[in-house]
Amino acid sequence: MNYKMVTYILGWIMIFEAIFMAVPSITAVIYGESALWSFLITAGICLVIGGLLTMKKRKKTTLYARDGLAIVALSWIVLSLFGALPMWMSGAIPSFVDALFESVSGFTTTGASILSDVEALPRSVLMWRSFTHWVGGMGVLVFIMAFLPLSGGQNMHLMRAESPGPSVSKLVPRVRTTALLLYSIYFVLTLLEFILLLCGGMTVFEAMNTSFATAGTGGFGIYNTSMGSFSPYIQIVVTVFMLLFSINFNSYFFILVGKLKEAFSLEVKVFVFVVVVSVTIITANITSMFESVGEALRHSAFTVGSVISTTGFSTADFDLWPELSKAILVMLMFIGACAGSTGGGIKVSRIVILIKGMAKELETAVHPREVKKIKMDGHIVEHETVRAVNVYVAAFVLVYAVSMLVLSFDDHSFTTNFTAVAATINNIGPGLELVGPTCNFGFFSVPSKLVLIFDMLAGRLELFPMLILFKPSAWKK
Amino acid sequence: MNYKMVTYILGWIMIFEAIFMAVPSITAVIYGESALWSFLITAGICLVIGGLLTMKKRKKTTLYARDGLAIVALSWIVLSLFGALPMWMSGAIPSFVDALFESVSGFTTTGASILSDVEALPRSVLMWRSFTHWVGGMGVLVFIMAFLPLSGGQNMHLMRAESPGPSVSKLVPRVRTTALLLYSIYFVLTLLEFILLLCGGMTVFEAMNTSFATAGTGGFGIYNTSMGSFSPYIQIVVTVFMLLFSINFNSYFFILVGKLKEAFSLEVKVFVFVVVVSVTIITANITSMFESVGEALRHSAFTVGSVISTTGFSTADFDLWPELSKAILVMLMFIGACAGSTGGGIKVSRIVILIKGMAKELETAVHPREVKKIKMDGHIVEHETVRAVNVYVAAFVLVYAVSMLVLSFDDHSFTTNFTAVAATINNIGPGLELVGPTCNFGFFSVPSKLVLIFDMLAGRLELFPMLILFKPSAWKK
Repeated sequence: MNYKMVTYILGWIMIFEAIFMAVPSITAVIYGESALWSFLITAGICLVIGGLLTMKKRKKTTLYARDGLAIVALSWIVLSLFGALPMWMSGAIPSFVDALFESVSGFTTTGASILSDVEALPRSVLMWRSFTHWVGGMGVLVFIMAFLPLSGGQNMHLMRAESPGPSVSKLVPRVRTTALLLYSIYFVLTLLEFILLLCGGMTVFEAMNTSFATAGTGGFGIYNTSMGSFSPYIQIVVTVFMLLFSINFNSYFFILVGKLKEAFSLEVKVFVFVVVVSVTIITANITSMFESVGEALRHSAFTVGSVISTTGFSTADFDLWPELSKAILVMLMFIGACAGSTGGGIKVSRIVILIKGMAKELETAVHPREVKKIKMDGHIVEHETVRAVNVYVAAFVLVYAVSMLVLSFDDHSFTTNFTAVAATINNIGPGLELVGPTCNFGFFSVPSKLVLIFDMLAGRLELFPMLILFKPSAWKK
Repeated sequence: MNYKMVTYILGWIMIFEAIFMAVPSITAVIYGESALWSFLITAGICLVIGGLLTMKKRKKTTLYARDGLAIVALSWIVLSLFGALPMWMSGAIPSFVDALFESVSGFTTTGASILSDVEALPRSVLMWRSFTHWVGGMGVLVFIMAFLPLSGGQNMHLMRAESPGPSVSKLVPRVRTTALLLYSIYFVLTLLEFILLLCGGMTVFEAMNTSFATAGTGGFGIYNTSMGSFSPYIQIVVTVFMLLFSINFNSYFFILVGKLKEAFSLEVKVFVFVVVVSVTIITANITSMFESVGEALRHSAFTVGSVISTTGFSTADFDLWPELSKAILVMLMFIGACAGSTGGGIKVSRIVILIKGMAKELETAVHPREVKKIKMDGHIVEHETVRAVNVYVAAFVLVYAVSMLVLSFDDHSFTTNFTAVAATINNIGPGLELVGPTCNFGFFSVPSKLVLIFDMLAGRLELFPMLILFKPSAWKK
């Protein structure tokens, strides 16, 4: 491992974290909250350590793929640890493990909470929670990349390690410009939602929190009823934006440059198809529980959007819905959003590649002499990508199994454990039964919480950056 | 598809099914049961159709891999359909779908039943159920192969399609001799268990049924309490044999020819390790529920043996055990037995290849320039095998998801549906909650039963033979 570059970049991560803390600090000033000090002290610590680590520009700047993976994993761990500090210091969350859970849940855009009463939190802490979603959604290193003077090759390794999906393509030749472009789209879409929410009668504070949490597909709410107490208009706006933020951001770039064919890729089409089918079936399944088909449709669309985008907001307690609706929702938890979006899960493109791989295998069994390649949108999917997707699924299943095993020591129900892991590793938030939409993760033991923290990070970073930390040879100089 | 060869082999399948029915027919004669007629009539039908189909030796005997897959799938379907006939005709199981469920559950060695009171069945029907386990355990086509005059290449395609595990190796150059050898080992082990059970005070009827069901790792019981009412000695004998029948039969061959190193392969070592660790943890976990540690150990070892061998017998209602024990058992359901045994599940060797594949991927991420190959027992695992394992897992997950979705229409709990699919696709028998060891599958709707029937067949034949039937091009001449 290139320790000099690792500490250098971790230093920058800490400086940026200090800068990010301006947002909750300003909130604390506006509302005159004492939590201000915890943010200022944390920011001060981050600035000092970060300043020391970045004092001199490192000479040996070569980064290998393995360094990219390790840097991304360590960055997210450091970010989460210091992000937890103000929540713990302010007394908002008395246990540090709980504060870490909340911080990891924020940055990884999971939205799972250990809190039973979020309304009791200072507004600055609420703002910090929502803002961590926004920062984590698009990726911290992608953000830093837009400012930091690193060479293109280095950037690519970092971007590849942090960006979700089976493969990363640059929109423009320069990685840095690509990062800037993606962040601009992200910023504009967030702003648009913010304005539309204001039009619906939300306060500036509510609208900022909600649009940050939607944009990152995070799901931390500022009310105990999540989105349940807001008007149908607000709920519909949030539904639309949850879905918009789960589409590959490349599509928006292609729309901007007029390449409509590229914008509506197979992945986007499959995503839309899955959403429409799921909403239709669930609406039919739950209609009798609501006063009108329209109301059922609204809740069904909101919930499907919330789950497939891996946001985790709720307007209704879907744990009370019939088993068919719940089964579809659990399935959507695993499918997740499109690659290159802010959403989590296994990703639609991986599912498409898996199904195509299976179809190819059957085809080969029938016609062994014909050599077939998997194609997507007219391009051949590289053998390497197919293999990586297969290994990803295998690693996913193994991490899942080990997590379930540790959680089961707590002696909660199978469904609780199964959906708790599903909700964290796919970065969604709520699951079923004890971790249902009206519940929280506070009751888990410390070992279980640590496993779920690992799962959230592993899910957001797509397993390998976190798994590589367990390999002793990865730590060698 | 080579229809002439397909019908020819299906004809032989039916003739052999008629021969198999001698076992329950003799039982019916001994006990003077009227069910005799239903077996004789079915055997007669099978002989007539089978005789017509096999009347003349086909000229074009070339078989391709795809024909092998299709023949195996169709053979098992035909076998199950006619196997269900006497259970239905005798009035023992009034609904034909239920009888089919029971027949498929028998041949695939699942052991899941739709019956709430097995003790009410005629003894000849009980014997038929147990005997289908014995026939299905080692494979029907492998059995027929030992007698039918097919060329070696044809045999290999059939054997590969029917035998469980990621790869099939011939023990001796001739496939037919290999089939004979395997069946001899199978027969001797079954006989040994039969004798040991007789020594424990079982009647001939009980001992025959129990050893058939253990040998096939099936799990149909002849009492409503499964193995619960038998003596500790009997339970221990059954535990040992369940484990013996889940080890790769090649190992026994290697022991016989003195190649001890080959006999204790990595797969066998991992299998033993998993069993020992699971038994230890579960014993510790359930000790307080029993009178002594010894008793807890006996139930724990029996249950672990029953689940990992995918037999499905029970001595205790493990659905009442703590969540940790249940989580381990659910995990064992998926791991399953060794390849080349009579057990089901994903197979230990596949799990080993998956983990090694993941480790290799991490290794490649750290040292991208070193080309590594996966090795097992000193041999390189072919790239093709690794890919097939990966595709297998992907296909498994997809079939699983679709099955869960159909089952959820019945509106039973998530755990019930999840473990019902697990118990059928892995050919175990009991699951948790509504399909727990003291329950049965009778309450499912007809569509759900049909899906579970498909899952049992897909699980036993390792997915691809069943999936290929859905490909229109596979049916072309």
